[in-house]
Amino acid sequence: MRILLFREDGVIEPWAREFAALMPQVQTIAWREGEALPPCDYAVLWSPTPALLDQLAHVRAIFLMGAGVDALLKLGDALPPVPIVRLGDAGMGVQMAEYVAHAVLRYFRRFEEYEQQARHGAWNPLPQIAKQDFSVGIMGLGRLGLPVVEAMRLFGFPVRGWSRTPKAIAGVDCFHGTDGLDAFLRGTRVLVCMLPLTLDTANLLDRHNMGKLLPGAYLINVARGPILAEPDLMTLIRSGHIAGATLDVFRHEPLPAPHPFWNEPRISITPHISALTVRHDAVRQIADKIAALENGQPVADLVDRQLGY
Amino acid sequence: MRILLFREDGVIEPWAREFAALMPQVQTIAWREGEALPPCDYAVLWSPTPALLDQLAHVRAIFLMGAGVDALLKLGDALPPVPIVRLGDAGMGVQMAEYVAHAVLRYFRRFEEYEQQARHGAWNPLPQIAKQDFSVGIMGLGRLGLPVVEAMRLFGFPVRGWSRTPKAIAGVDCFHGTDGLDAFLRGTRVLVCMLPLTLDTANLLDRHNMGKLLPGAYLINVARGPILAEPDLMTLIRSGHIAGATLDVFRHEPLPAPHPFWNEPRISITPHISALTVRHDAVRQIADKIAALENGQPVADLVDRQLGY
Repeated sequence: MRILLFREDGVIEPWAREFAALMPQVQTIAWREGEALPPCDYAVLWSPTPALLDQLAHVRAIFLMGAGVDALLKLGDALPPVPIVRLGDAGMGVQMAEYVAHAVLRYFRRFEEYEQQARHGAWNPLPQIAKQDFSVGIMGLGRLGLPVVEAMRLFGFPVRGWSRTPKAIAGVDCFHGTDGLDAFLRGTRVLVCMLPLTLDTANLLDRHNMGKLLPGAYLINVARGPILAEPDLMTLIRSGHIAGATLDVFRHEPLPAPHPFWNEPRISITPHISALTVRHDAVRQIADKIAALENGQPVADLVDRQLGY
Repeated sequence: MRILLFREDGVIEPWAREFAALMPQVQTIAWREGEALPPCDYAVLWSPTPALLDQLAHVRAIFLMGAGVDALLKLGDALPPVPIVRLGDAGMGVQMAEYVAHAVLRYFRRFEEYEQQARHGAWNPLPQIAKQDFSVGIMGLGRLGLPVVEAMRLFGFPVRGWSRTPKAIAGVDCFHGTDGLDAFLRGTRVLVCMLPLTLDTANLLDRHNMGKLLPGAYLINVARGPILAEPDLMTLIRSGHIAGATLDVFRHEPLPAPHPFWNEPRISITPHISALTVRHDAVRQIADKIAALENGQPVADLVDRQLGY
């Protein structure tokens, strides 16, 4: 079996080593712009070029080295008519749980305020926020959302969830669809965005919707930048309706130098690091999915081009 | 039944309300310095004065409104010869888990460094630390230690534990006693101190013992200040052997203005807030323990004056 490996950043050697370790019978193939592609059975990609996609109509499936597919699906008809499979969890779920737990605990326990006090040598215990006033609402209850739910429940936060289709999760107040959005937002103090970027979710977090959150709300966005209407967040932060935001993703990355987020102390910025692909876990998962396809079994995380994820 | 309520800070009214709600048959009694104490069956105290303790020889038991008993036991022979019962968990375990999880995730995911970068508008993803290199060693595996263990395991950190007596906890490398201390420390990257302050634990965290931690270690102290040899921590931080410390407790509280900890950026200071007593949970627990005593049943969290906790 021959598997094409391609990444826009060119770093495919460590991926080839993982494949050699986990699928020793497989031959991995590299490709460079301008070359003709040798025959191959599967393609494992991140950010492919149009010239490469043009040559992939014959592969049995395309595997992506990540969970988000919005950039790829934007190509629309340029995509070859073969199954596209994204990564399910591959070590990213626990990283999301780490990132979100740190941000939620930081707001809930007022650690940012304690750090400011300490800079001035002030010893001043602050009133504790009641947990029943700190509901955490998670948008997106897929494979990466569930570990976040679990962490929030361990710490005893009231947990709410919102998803496109109905879900039932023990200990979580579940809402779904356009009809459920209003009630979900109105009871949420900390909004955690883990949605895929689709035509339906772009600009979903705008002034109108974020204005429904409980007063003194917090926003944590670990999904995709364009889901958030960035100027609307600035407006709600300045009005005080939103007390703080922790953002890992942005409409333009790297976040441009003159962006007002950089100078707003109530916004914490990280450079799209909330969940990095763990190579070993990713290759293990792709190997299992190839085995399933070869045996005519169904695979999880098949991309639905209509739904956009 | 008559229960004496006393706190050094004088704030007993909200405690009296909780008792009225949970034990309506009970009469609560206040006492002020200089007054004679009316007869009572039990005493519920925080930081009692010697004049009060002198009058408590006749109560059936003394309950404390907290988990730490070091300050009380210092009084030695001045203590009346009646059973002393400390709080078990009473909502403090989950607060400890919150505090420790925030600090550990902050170091592990390098959030402090990301904040520094963001202050200068720098977008720069940092290499991720491998989890197998980030073992968390918890000293003290009592009621408050276990929720911390659980949180660390949820996030997948390698967890080690050390306690005075042998313990067996699923998924935790357990060490115990003086003989086990060396091996425990030598495999620990993040040391979490949750020990009671006793003659054996005072200054236990000195240059000698902390020097055994893995290079680039972190210290989190949520127990009692005198367990840590404070100048030794400064030495190890300056040498780089310890990369950072998060301290909630100190030898002298409030931490005095000229203390070098205030000016060391690698030390995070909070004003003894890691776990506050949740009044409702505490009174619920005391009510249950009184019921057990009245029925001649054993109660948990009885203080052992020899062991010092």
